[in-house]
Amino acid sequence: MLTSASITLGAAMTAADQVDYVSGRTRLFGIVGHPIEQVRSPEMITAELVVRGHDAVLVPMHVLPDDFDSCLPQIMRLRNLGGLVFTIPFKARACSLADALLPQAHAVGAINALARGNDGRWRGEIFDGLGCVEAFRRRGIGFRDRRVMLVGAGGAGTAIAVALGFEKPASLTIFDVNEERARLAAAKVTLGNPQVSAHAGPPRIRDVDILLNASPAGMLDDARLPFPMEAIPRETIVFDAVVKPERTPLLALAERCGCTAVAGREMMRGQIARMVDFFYAD
Amino acid sequence: MLTSASITLGAAMTAADQVDYVSGRTRLFGIVGHPIEQVRSPEMITAELVVRGHDAVLVPMHVLPDDFDSCLPQIMRLRNLGGLVFTIPFKARACSLADALLPQAHAVGAINALARGNDGRWRGEIFDGLGCVEAFRRRGIGFRDRRVMLVGAGGAGTAIAVALGFEKPASLTIFDVNEERARLAAAKVTLGNPQVSAHAGPPRIRDVDILLNASPAGMLDDARLPFPMEAIPRETIVFDAVVKPERTPLLALAERCGCTAVAGREMMRGQIARMVDFFYAD
Repeated sequence: MLTSASITLGAAMTAADQVDYVSGRTRLFGIVGHPIEQVRSPEMITAELVVRGHDAVLVPMHVLPDDFDSCLPQIMRLRNLGGLVFTIPFKARACSLADALLPQAHAVGAINALARGNDGRWRGEIFDGLGCVEAFRRRGIGFRDRRVMLVGAGGAGTAIAVALGFEKPASLTIFDVNEERARLAAAKVTLGNPQVSAHAGPPRIRDVDILLNASPAGMLDDARLPFPMEAIPRETIVFDAVVKPERTPLLALAERCGCTAVAGREMMRGQIARMVDFFYAD
Repeated sequence: MLTSASITLGAAMTAADQVDYVSGRTRLFGIVGHPIEQVRSPEMITAELVVRGHDAVLVPMHVLPDDFDSCLPQIMRLRNLGGLVFTIPFKARACSLADALLPQAHAVGAINALARGNDGRWRGEIFDGLGCVEAFRRRGIGFRDRRVMLVGAGGAGTAIAVALGFEKPASLTIFDVNEERARLAAAKVTLGNPQVSAHAGPPRIRDVDILLNASPAGMLDDARLPFPMEAIPRETIVFDAVVKPERTPLLALAERCGCTAVAGREMMRGQIARMVDFFYAD
């Protein structure tokens, strides 16, 4: 067809020739990872974008680790790119792409989202922990002045710890089978919020208002609890970051004991919501 | 959530949290242009991909001319990128990105599609003219041994001329208000197919089996014919590359004269079909 007439092509086509979810005006978002096939952000974040009325799509972008440093700055030059999500193994390396790191990203030392502002500057933030805080907020539960016990100080656990620090708990105890990781996570909490009492310590269920699991215990066919316990006081609020199974051994015990139980998928929804807020903050 | 559990997230989500047209396994295609908002390839080529059962999406990629040379080679490193479409102003510059040019692209000196082969090599081809040939093929009309008159030797006209050369017409006369462009197009036809009689010449309707318009005459509110004519012999086959309006002044005249009329949107569909063949040729 006449290339000079390309602006007019659509009107000549019937609905059967077209799909309704992407066009030349669609704002582009991507998730960058290696491998990429397993990520769920494309369908889940795109759904959130669409529900909010944005003409936007988030697509998978498979970048090899050796290509990351040369590839990403150029991808970020796409004018209709609104933001990027980063997953394994790029969450720490992606920090260098940001013009500015938001406070949680600064404390954690990793980002999982970059957003392009109207000024053209890229802001980086990590939403793993913010998703947990958002899940609690949606349940009407705050962390302020609560005594919190967190098990697991890997990437997700550390991000959760840092996010909780901003919520001003009375105390935050962090346990990990690798004690050094627990100490490092506590230090990152203190970096972001020096006045918060955060420290590494053994897992406990007494004198705890909120118990959080961010360890892999209970994932898939793993029947273990995060640490040995017979029962949980019914006034304790219990959260598990594990999303499959949805009802983990810890959450099942919490329910039997009459506790309030908050599930990993609530954190996932919270994270997606906060991330889309971030992408369209400007 | 636990990043190590990201592979399992989907199963825990309900259908309401997801869209069904993009996932981590979706193969990525892009259209590269400046500007980009007006392009229709995203919805039309994606529709063709989906109709054929491919898990794929074609998204707009807005690249500024100054960024093209640095940006494109890096975008092409995305491992799940299957191909790119190029539009204004990049069709000529994009040639340098191809590891190999197919014959029409070589003769025209421009491409509008790049496909990644299973061997990792990128092949470039131009489909403007192939779309016209495909539209005729779908009507059961061949160009072989026909006397062809083509009006318009811009980008689309030149690509059509070159594609027709491969169909072995008896003769191909090319007219353009810029005579030099017509001569250059004829030379490109001969470059691809030395035995074909292609030459620049004045427009005519007598002794013509197939009349093609690839000039802007008749586009939108333009009531002009490509050149002055009172009637068209009813055995003439008439094609107009203009897609809006669908029934151009030329096609309206052809219909009144009882001619077979082939419309620009048929070429567009032909081009999309051939392009998707090309993307999945391996």
